[in-house]
Amino acid sequence: MSKTILITGGARSGKSGIAETMALSLAPRAVYIATAEAHDAEMEARIAAHQARRGAEWDTHAEPLDLTGALAATDGRGPRLIDCLTLWLSNLLHARRNWQAAGAEFVTALAAQRDPVVIVTNEVGCGIVPDNALAREFRDAAGLLNQKIAAVSDEVHLVVSGLPLKVK
Amino acid sequence: MSKTILITGGARSGKSGIAETMALSLAPRAVYIATAEAHDAEMEARIAAHQARRGAEWDTHAEPLDLTGALAATDGRGPRLIDCLTLWLSNLLHARRNWQAAGAEFVTALAAQRDPVVIVTNEVGCGIVPDNALAREFRDAAGLLNQKIAAVSDEVHLVVSGLPLKVK
Amino acid sequence: MSKTILITGGARSGKSGIAETMALSLAPRAVYIATAEAHDAEMEARIAAHQARRGAEWDTHAEPLDLTGALAATDGRGPRLIDCLTLWLSNLLHARRNWQAAGAEFVTALAAQRDPVVIVTNEVGCGIVPDNALAREFRDAAGLLNQKIAAVSDEVHLVVSGLPLKVK
Repeated sequence: MSKTILITGGARSGKSGIAETMALSLAPRAVYIATAEAHDAEMEARIAAHQARRGAEWDTHAEPLDLTGALAATDGRGPRLIDCLTLWLSNLLHARRNWQAAGAEFVTALAAQRDPVVIVTNEVGCGIVPDNALAREFRDAAGLLNQKIAAVSDEVHLVVSGLPLKVK
Repeated sequence: MSKTILITGGARSGKSGIAETMALSLAPRAVYIATAEAHDAEMEARIAAHQARRGAEWDTHAEPLDLTGALAATDGRGPRLIDCLTLWLSNLLHARRNWQAAGAEFVTALAAQRDPVVIVTNEVGCGIVPDNALAREFRDAAGLLNQKIAAVSDEVHLVVSGLPLKVK
Repeated sequence: MSKTILITGGARSGKSGIAETMALSLAPRAVYIATAEAHDAEMEARIAAHQARRGAEWDTHAEPLDLTGALAATDGRGPRLIDCLTLWLSNLLHARRNWQAAGAEFVTALAAQRDPVVIVTNEVGCGIVPDNALAREFRDAAGLLNQKIAAVSDEVHLVVSGLPLKVK
């Protein structure tokens, strides 16, 4: 059975760097499954900074919506790093997809993988309750999705100031 | 002396589910002390979802303001689960009560309980400083109240993605 | 070599109290390096409350911008407590200084200290993505700065409800 590792933490806590190190500790080459789409200059700069840190050991597979399909397409090619889950959720909500169904399908697919999957997600629920209903819906969905993935993960780490704290 | 357990974490991190399991691990029946009041449809849906998860092992005692009275009224009826502390604080502030006095009274009452008390609270201080003064006052009060309860608790757990991390 | 300890956590989580206890556990007298400037009544009240808690064991050195200079000026006078790093970052951004350069200079200076340094910082990245770009810039910078300081620290503690959780 393949290994699933969930890496969570706040913005700029060093999650991606730790996830990349973990994925490459499992095999010399790995697949980076990017959920990001560059809609504006800020996002483009963020994606470019992420890509610049990664080296030639990485194949990139960009997929904003069909993560289950991305798992199927990349299984057998080494460890996969999904970066990140909350952006995927945001893409699903934006595209008015059923995120609960997509999340359940993804959880089922995880159990069927041969190669390991390292997943980066975000803690978004530790601030004041947001004023607007969409933001509340997003943070509720993110919290629920994180719970479901964590439940089927072999390891869960909370990243604090660049340091992983093992939760599971 | 009775046992006090504090469960903290972000929104939708799985705090309530873990608190329920802990309370029912202490006795076959428990009392659910609900601080929620249904002011709108969103809140009603949230309360209904919480109630649907709980089974017949639970007696419900609704109390938005007088938590110390609720402890007195339910002691001797098994473990109590208070869900949640931050909503209680919000109710106190909304009703223009003295939350410091109510909090101190509640802390004193906790030490006098015969039956255990499991308390759910929220992490609300790990985001950007809120723009408006009321939100800042609330998050300051919540942080201070959490500290005071944690200081007298036998166990404190931080819930991350549905997993409890023991802090005390 | 001197010891560097980083204390992080949410608003009103009890970081300052724990940092003060740690600094005074290292020597009978310590230097409080305050990065706060009182721009309004709310800030004045916050500073006064912090000062009231500290006793006569503390010398105070106020420095909103030049933390590296403050380290040089106070080395040899016992443990230093810097409270707090995120306010320093906010001061730098407000004064339109190059925070990356100032941060790198500060990290270098830390390694050269003879007396210990305890640093208080804040978790600001665990809420919903802020609407405005300046707030996003601040939380990104805070996260990156926390990572850099944590990497050179001997100990890192996450404070939850007044309780330190050792991360490093």
